[in-house]
Amino acid sequence: MLPKSIQNLIDEFSKLPGVGSKTAARLTFYMLSRSDDDIRTFGESILNLKNNLKTCSICYNISEIEPCLICSDIKKDKSLLCVVEEPLDIIALSKTNFTGLYHVLGGVISPIDGIGPNEIRIKELLNRVCQNEIKEVILATDPSLEGEATASYIASEIEKLQKQGKIKKDLKITRIARGLPVGGDLEYADEVTLSRALEGRGNYK
Amino acid sequence: MLPKSIQNLIDEFSKLPGVGSKTAARLTFYMLSRSDDDIRTFGESILNLKNNLKTCSICYNISEIEPCLICSDIKKDKSLLCVVEEPLDIIALSKTNFTGLYHVLGGVISPIDGIGPNEIRIKELLNRVCQNEIKEVILATDPSLEGEATASYIASEIEKLQKQGKIKKDLKITRIARGLPVGGDLEYADEVTLSRALEGRGNYK
Repeated sequence: MLPKSIQNLIDEFSKLPGVGSKTAARLTFYMLSRSDDDIRTFGESILNLKNNLKTCSICYNISEIEPCLICSDIKKDKSLLCVVEEPLDIIALSKTNFTGLYHVLGGVISPIDGIGPNEIRIKELLNRVCQNEIKEVILATDPSLEGEATASYIASEIEKLQKQGKIKKDLKITRIARGLPVGGDLEYADEVTLSRALEGRGNYK
Repeated sequence: MLPKSIQNLIDEFSKLPGVGSKTAARLTFYMLSRSDDDIRTFGESILNLKNNLKTCSICYNISEIEPCLICSDIKKDKSLLCVVEEPLDIIALSKTNFTGLYHVLGGVISPIDGIGPNEIRIKELLNRVCQNEIKEVILATDPSLEGEATASYIASEIEKLQKQGKIKKDLKITRIARGLPVGGDLEYADEVTLSRALEGRGNYK
């Protein structure tokens, strides 16, 4: 019943995560109300998305240049290394005043999905830690079951290499704090978060 | 900091209704994980969206052919005319067993947005009702403040024309029922909906 070009775009929008068929139809009719120029700009920005994109050979972030802007930034503190799951996490962290470098794992260990330690960039991380003057590795994987397991696995692998003398003994391994999100409400927090918030309590300054 | 092509697409997704900057970033990185073919299909379906699209000169629905598939369908009951706000409403109604024709107003009367009766296709509707053998006009604007006001305005305009003898006296003007949505929960219904549900009660068959 619907014109083919409209049905096509509804189908495409429906493939996006979190977009059902009704939202897809709403987005498509919204696009119809936009000007021809707006539609062309949107379409072309999708077609050009992967143009000139590379994976940085140092941190595995997505970048236009090699090495990426962060790895080649001389102002960054190269002794601080923050380990994240996805490039998207770097966008969030770059809004904080963190000044160190990143390492993108490209996922988390998840046996249920057939993803073991060799499927994500843990070996590359360990090599990087061995070969560079790093003072602290911050494990910033998500505070989910898989994220915690991945953080724990990486920590144990680094400790092994410290025992073998391949990584300096004074390298600090830290984990981002888990607690109440700022602006959150204590009474609505789940018990695991609340337990973490208590365990991780700090001195009142 | 972000590659330009990624930032561009995030900006474009952010323009969609209901999509904030975080969702836009998530959608963009999801697109990055898709194959080149998938990306091209999506981009092209946006670029081709308005190709060959017309507005039906009878019902003002969006269509590839003129008159549209619904208006040119001989199986439709041409004595039933359902008045809706947007083409999107026709998609929803076409999933029911309604067999009549439609009339797309292209909006609702909303003085706050500077939209009066002349800005939407009420005159075209009245002409259509005058010139065709229509037995019932179903007012299916949204059950919102503006939708109700628009329905009320159209009803009074038709009644005026009936008094002038330009529209048959036995033309029925009806309004879609307002009540509890199927699967809904009585205790969560607001009082206006509940009042409407009581007012509109029917015999138990």
